[in-house]
Amino acid sequence: MAQDSHLVGLIGSGIGPSLSPALHEREADRHGLRYLYRILDIDRLGIPPTGVGRLLRAARDTGYTGLNVTHPCKQHVIGHLDELSGQAAVLGAVNTVVLTPDGRAVGHNTDVTGFAGAFADGLDAPLDHVVQLGAGGAGAAVAHALLGLGARHLTLVDTVPERAHALAAALNEHVGAARADSRPPRDLAVELARADGLVHATPTGMAAHPGIPLPAGLLHPRLWVADIVYRPLDTELLRAARALGCRVLDGGGMAVHQAADAFRLFTGLEPDRARMLADFADLTGAPPART
Amino acid sequence: MAQDSHLVGLIGSGIGPSLSPALHEREADRHGLRYLYRILDIDRLGIPPTGVGRLLRAARDTGYTGLNVTHPCKQHVIGHLDELSGQAAVLGAVNTVVLTPDGRAVGHNTDVTGFAGAFADGLDAPLDHVVQLGAGGAGAAVAHALLGLGARHLTLVDTVPERAHALAAALNEHVGAARADSRPPRDLAVELARADGLVHATPTGMAAHPGIPLPAGLLHPRLWVADIVYRPLDTELLRAARALGCRVLDGGGMAVHQAADAFRLFTGLEPDRARMLADFADLTGAPPART
Repeated sequence: MAQDSHLVGLIGSGIGPSLSPALHEREADRHGLRYLYRILDIDRLGIPPTGVGRLLRAARDTGYTGLNVTHPCKQHVIGHLDELSGQAAVLGAVNTVVLTPDGRAVGHNTDVTGFAGAFADGLDAPLDHVVQLGAGGAGAAVAHALLGLGARHLTLVDTVPERAHALAAALNEHVGAARADSRPPRDLAVELARADGLVHATPTGMAAHPGIPLPAGLLHPRLWVADIVYRPLDTELLRAARALGCRVLDGGGMAVHQAADAFRLFTGLEPDRARMLADFADLTGAPPART
Repeated sequence: MAQDSHLVGLIGSGIGPSLSPALHEREADRHGLRYLYRILDIDRLGIPPTGVGRLLRAARDTGYTGLNVTHPCKQHVIGHLDELSGQAAVLGAVNTVVLTPDGRAVGHNTDVTGFAGAFADGLDAPLDHVVQLGAGGAGAAVAHALLGLGARHLTLVDTVPERAHALAAALNEHVGAARADSRPPRDLAVELARADGLVHATPTGMAAHPGIPLPAGLLHPRLWVADIVYRPLDTELLRAARALGCRVLDGGGMAVHQAADAFRLFTGLEPDRARMLADFADLTGAPPART
């Protein structure tokens, strides 16, 4: 098998419009690699989320270098892997699988490093007290990233309070200190009033789930606001925050950094993140909307 | 799925050193296509020849555009296809599978057109009486090509006489006339003495099967000699023939034309055969050895 060529793909549901093929292929072209990124949509293939093992094996048999994995397969894929990175094991979720030349499948999670890279890149902001909306899969990755970035206190709020509670407990166990807690949605006003920043990690604001995830009246100018939604880049939440003069970070940076981290895992080469951010802006038809 | 990119592969046994990836990818690069050609070696994968259906399904699920198929899977693959070209059906062998966007697998055989193209390209030679050594899978393709090229009489010789007999019968049934017959190896001297040309279609002379497939003394200067072996290009048979002043055709032309025909089936684009021949010479480190 030619070692200077790379065959990668994205496994998930409803992923036809993904920007990953273009982001990866453009960066690979700049490195002079022969690189092909395929969309493997389980809906189109008629494969249930629990059948991801079959698709993983197919990719291994047909010479794939690696795979990105997204909803609803990030957990299901774990049982079919030979090895997990520490980060993926802690999260219990895999979004990147490297298929090694000797036939092993190794799971990683670049959502954590992706958010951390985007935040470090795009916001130089205080982290004494951060409120995070959403404690699902993406929320878990973002919360781990925030603690890794040095957030002193992280308050998790989810419409399913048990989910926020469980994530806070897992985070505290992981960092060995009570840096995370959870609050019911009714406490959001109080928490935000004394917070430095708000991170949004629910689907609200995505093209398929329009709207704003909290009353805009709860925002205030001393708050920075980071959204992980990136389709569209400019969400109703970010528009409301920007109107108040808040510093904002859109979801494009995380999308690009997680792709860049996956590219590095697949190829062993260091991607040019600035150029990938420019590609992302070009592909979405919008300039990177950072303060 | 991006429609301007192509993912293809070769299924077979012991195919690691195949030149197909380089031949296809170089031609694709000249067309500006994103094109990746993978080697899917059933030995390395631990898949038996009868398991080719699993590999075909894996390729379909993982976004392959098409596959080349070689020994020992050319017959086994047929039961897993949705459709066959006329040529593949007549031969009962498939060396090219096109996977259509709507999920069908269509089998073709470019060995016939590959040999015909190479012959038309490389030898302007009389075809009144042609002797062919070897009536196996490759032999069947070459024999069909020779009759298609207008060979008036084709004599098949094989170390397994029943195989030559059966192929002659199949050819005559196909063309509706007694243009092919078979002779045992002991008649080779008599047949060659009155023949215009000799086509060699057995493995003898390949790197793994060195030697010459018949006594060199049976050759004579009025004979043209075509070999389908192409690794090495310059076989002991061709050297002996050339020393006698025979016009010769090496196996490179067939290898290139079958690849070019597959490329056309995969992409819908017309390959530049002259450039592919030059690539082949470059890859094998030898100039095309044609008279």
